[in-house]
Amino acid sequence: MGHTTPVPPTPLPGSDRGWLWDPSVVLLNHGSFGSLPLAVAEAAERHRRYIEAQPIARLGRGVADLLRAPKEALARLLGAPPDRIGLMENATAGIAAVLRNIAWQPGDEVVTTSHVYGAVRQALLRERDLHGVVIHEVPLPLPVPSGADLVERVTTALSTRTRLVLVDHVTSPTALVVPVKAIVKACHARGIAVMIDGAHAPGMVPLELDALGADWYTGNLHKWAYAPKGCAFLHASAERASQTHPASISHHYGAGMDLEFGWQGTRDVGAWMAITDAIAWMDAFGDGVVMDHNRRLAAWAHQLMVDSGFFEPISPADGSMRGSMASCRLGARWRTRFDSVDALQAAILSSGSVEVPCMELHGDWLLRVSAAPHNRPWQYERLVDTMRALDRAS
Amino acid sequence: MGHTTPVPPTPLPGSDRGWLWDPSVVLLNHGSFGSLPLAVAEAAERHRRYIEAQPIARLGRGVADLLRAPKEALARLLGAPPDRIGLMENATAGIAAVLRNIAWQPGDEVVTTSHVYGAVRQALLRERDLHGVVIHEVPLPLPVPSGADLVERVTTALSTRTRLVLVDHVTSPTALVVPVKAIVKACHARGIAVMIDGAHAPGMVPLELDALGADWYTGNLHKWAYAPKGCAFLHASAERASQTHPASISHHYGAGMDLEFGWQGTRDVGAWMAITDAIAWMDAFGDGVVMDHNRRLAAWAHQLMVDSGFFEPISPADGSMRGSMASCRLGARWRTRFDSVDALQAAILSSGSVEVPCMELHGDWLLRVSAAPHNRPWQYERLVDTMRALDRAS
Repeated sequence: MGHTTPVPPTPLPGSDRGWLWDPSVVLLNHGSFGSLPLAVAEAAERHRRYIEAQPIARLGRGVADLLRAPKEALARLLGAPPDRIGLMENATAGIAAVLRNIAWQPGDEVVTTSHVYGAVRQALLRERDLHGVVIHEVPLPLPVPSGADLVERVTTALSTRTRLVLVDHVTSPTALVVPVKAIVKACHARGIAVMIDGAHAPGMVPLELDALGADWYTGNLHKWAYAPKGCAFLHASAERASQTHPASISHHYGAGMDLEFGWQGTRDVGAWMAITDAIAWMDAFGDGVVMDHNRRLAAWAHQLMVDSGFFEPISPADGSMRGSMASCRLGARWRTRFDSVDALQAAILSSGSVEVPCMELHGDWLLRVSAAPHNRPWQYERLVDTMRALDRAS
Repeated sequence: MGHTTPVPPTPLPGSDRGWLWDPSVVLLNHGSFGSLPLAVAEAAERHRRYIEAQPIARLGRGVADLLRAPKEALARLLGAPPDRIGLMENATAGIAAVLRNIAWQPGDEVVTTSHVYGAVRQALLRERDLHGVVIHEVPLPLPVPSGADLVERVTTALSTRTRLVLVDHVTSPTALVVPVKAIVKACHARGIAVMIDGAHAPGMVPLELDALGADWYTGNLHKWAYAPKGCAFLHASAERASQTHPASISHHYGAGMDLEFGWQGTRDVGAWMAITDAIAWMDAFGDGVVMDHNRRLAAWAHQLMVDSGFFEPISPADGSMRGSMASCRLGARWRTRFDSVDALQAAILSSGSVEVPCMELHGDWLLRVSAAPHNRPWQYERLVDTMRALDRAS
């Protein structure tokens, strides 16, 4: 809870060592692409070499065996059976697969929110261009007062023409943890399908996907599950699984998600095998310990930012919509000093060696910090100090 | 030319060292998944670590810079400008992107051949299921007498309902190099679009894609261009480029192939960067030297197989349809001795430690050898000796 965490969490022992990032830059943006523990990188390299040693035996005949362990580890993380989890390259591919599988009629409506991830908005525009789908972006003005308010706004937007509701589990520019269960419930009560874009969710918030009950749920593992790039998944409900195919159809078309998603043409299966190692890396700190550390560090950093006077909160004060990222609105003074959010972001990087994303959303300027196991309190203080210096200088 | 090559080519110096494959197994199946030079694997590992050191700067802001060198190297290999080449995960994804981009009408016909790759057949079945597309597989009985005969059969199958012709540049089960230029010409004369599945072609046969003029051409780089798994491309003609999108739509939808394909969500860009290293590895032997070596070794191996009496040729005797693989039909005796091609393949592996694919195609049993830089003549002799022993034993 932001306003009740004046003290940052105790750093996890050793959690700032053994990463591939360059320590000369303060990386407060774990959220965009993740950062990779050396141990996981080395595991992926071992797996790739293991496959290359006998590619026909291991990849051609043995791929299902290779994927068993990572899929079982992932199934435990997600709270869903392995045979309804398809491994993907990224959440973008998960979205693409689901949109491709729907037999759209012109005028079918997709409801999403004004905080939707930019790439997903583009994917929906493609459906509009191909099939005449109508996109309804529910406005979520800042600050968002509560999860209940968000659910109410989305629910009010549903109509008889709504074919699909597509919402983020954790919004990207605003870093809000959305009460997706209430949205699923409201949609299903009206017979409307729901897809959750959990790009940021696995490893950030506890997941029980089968209990959640969304028709489809996609998520990345290279962010908060510390897996190599190229690791993601698509989960389907029991009702949807047999009609859920990857965008790249290969030998096992129609044979069920396990086989179909397990072979989407020749790819780097070694990265997928390292999902096991990534989850083990996280679990080695203790059950839920990394997730809890990150959430508490983000809460502390959020309070620090608000206290600095440079930032306005955009999320409920009780912290109920925050996970391991915190996004704040920049005050009007910054817009007079910098031509664009990109210019501000570049100034923070060049002045303070702090890598942190500044984003514009429907006219608001936002800054988002991430709290990963490798982050430490002084890094957020560096951010605030850098902004103080920029404020004075300009 | 098969019947005029009694002598195998001189091995390329050092070309059997520095690979990741396990020397305890004779790998006569480079064609399925390729095999990776250690130098290219190490380059990919370096590139991945380079990205991970500063993920936001290098991947987020710098991805176009990272992809410039591999795309330029690839453009030279393919004979096409970089801005109409989209990097893909594999040829299966290239097929998926193109099929997705066509606004099918029920009854639209796709013409392909009976040697079409199994996964592509499945991808076409998906279009049938979604859009009522009719699939016309032109029978190509064995042996195939000539390229001209193949072109004639495909051309004869075209009708006013033909929307797309989709043919392999190098067929997978039968390893035939198809005269695709003549097919493109015949189709375009009738206003029919052509996609070439060049899964096996890059590095096996010289390519001049812009001169070829197919509407779309996809190919893998992990096979005969010695790149890591996850490296492939889709090329579009100048007329088709602006309407050609990847299956995974992301931020740059509609901004042109270079940007759109260059960002299909977060992925392992390090593998794509290693395309530069893979092509350099190949070129270090001399311009076209690896390609020529492989083709001559395959021709010699083909002759050895035919001379053994266990195999019947399925391609023209002048070698005009063979590249760096050779596929032969197995005589009837093998079908009385083994329950299935899989059982025969397993017996060859267990008796002779030779990994070679045995495939069934429309009732015929086929065996296909590959000739890669790491292969040596004794390995094909081992195959023939193994089959002789199996023949005597059973």
